[in-house]
Amino acid sequence: MPLDAAQAHYLSGVMRQKPGDDVMVFNGRDGEWSARIDQAGKRGGSLTIGQQTAPQRDPPDLWLLFAPIKKARTDFIVEKAAELGCARILPVQSDFTNSERIRQDRLQAHAVEAAEQCGGTFVPAVADLQPLSRLLAGWDPARQILWADEAMAGPAQTLAGLLPGAWAILIGPEGGFSESERVILRGLPFVHPVSLGPRILRADTAAVAAIALWQAALGDWRG
Amino acid sequence: MPLDAAQAHYLSGVMRQKPGDDVMVFNGRDGEWSARIDQAGKRGGSLTIGQQTAPQRDPPDLWLLFAPIKKARTDFIVEKAAELGCARILPVQSDFTNSERIRQDRLQAHAVEAAEQCGGTFVPAVADLQPLSRLLAGWDPARQILWADEAMAGPAQTLAGLLPGAWAILIGPEGGFSESERVILRGLPFVHPVSLGPRILRADTAAVAAIALWQAALGDWRG
Repeated sequence: MPLDAAQAHYLSGVMRQKPGDDVMVFNGRDGEWSARIDQAGKRGGSLTIGQQTAPQRDPPDLWLLFAPIKKARTDFIVEKAAELGCARILPVQSDFTNSERIRQDRLQAHAVEAAEQCGGTFVPAVADLQPLSRLLAGWDPARQILWADEAMAGPAQTLAGLLPGAWAILIGPEGGFSESERVILRGLPFVHPVSLGPRILRADTAAVAAIALWQAALGDWRG
Repeated sequence: MPLDAAQAHYLSGVMRQKPGDDVMVFNGRDGEWSARIDQAGKRGGSLTIGQQTAPQRDPPDLWLLFAPIKKARTDFIVEKAAELGCARILPVQSDFTNSERIRQDRLQAHAVEAAEQCGGTFVPAVADLQPLSRLLAGWDPARQILWADEAMAGPAQTLAGLLPGAWAILIGPEGGFSESERVILRGLPFVHPVSLGPRILRADTAAVAAIALWQAALGDWRG
């Protein structure tokens, strides 16, 4: 199997692997496989694929919608969403979002790295930045949205009455959503507001906490 | 009220506040108060305390025990534990912990900053690094331990049967606990192993996820 220059550099320059060394590889669709390095240099290389070592394991049908914040915390949200088991990551532009654009390629690379670090076989696709209003206008109402609403600080709504299926988690930007966004969200029948306790959380903390609660109640962490 | 040099520098140098400006202050015990800056310079300063603006709000009786990892991720765990509502943070040395020492003062400063950023009125005390074995030897058996056990990857134990009260969450180092540590932990009647799903999580992710699940099931996020 051919390696492109970036893959070959990662193996030889970053991971210090040499021809003849064994590595584990995955493509996001067919599980994990052992492979032997034939060659890996600056311009590319190649692997010989061996036995399958783990089955493909896809996450539940959970999307994460979040408003990008500062660079390090945005990277962090993508890394954690990949680790915790989100199927898609959709950065959204809201009224209080500062960013006009994101580095989609860099965020996608973070998702790949998180899967590599954690022995995952699935990498969530990271979409390019899009306005929340446009996303909601074309929303499939069969996909429920769990809205971590910072204005609801207080005891959490219980997730116990909610049913598994196609879901998305929506996390606001620092400062929350605007009043007009809140009116729209409150009016959508597929949006379920939930509180994450009495303390104000940063957006990255809220994202990790909401994904964990969803996975335990509705996802593949259920007992 | 006098300000020490670090506090005065933070107000004047970092936050760019001037004499006459109003700020909110908290001491971790008496809620939040408005205050006016009398003076703030390099060597110190003073405030005049005004009205109370928020009551003291203490977190539930939850401790976090974790094995320090790389610097940035250790800082992150302390920040998130303070945000999510832990009462005490105890870094522990386990068989696979790399660090021999921590910068307790720096971690404590991170906990203070997290409370400041999130409008909190409580700052969890960060203990100095201590061996897990010693901590467990002197453990009060009335305090239950929720052990996020990475070897249990699979559907999570439900927290539904557990009772609120004095608790601690225990997160292992990268690579998990050693076999002898696992034998000890499994034998302790106050230790409750819990799985955080079928994917392997980094230690910092596991800490945030476990605190969120505990808060929702047993803490002050309950509906």
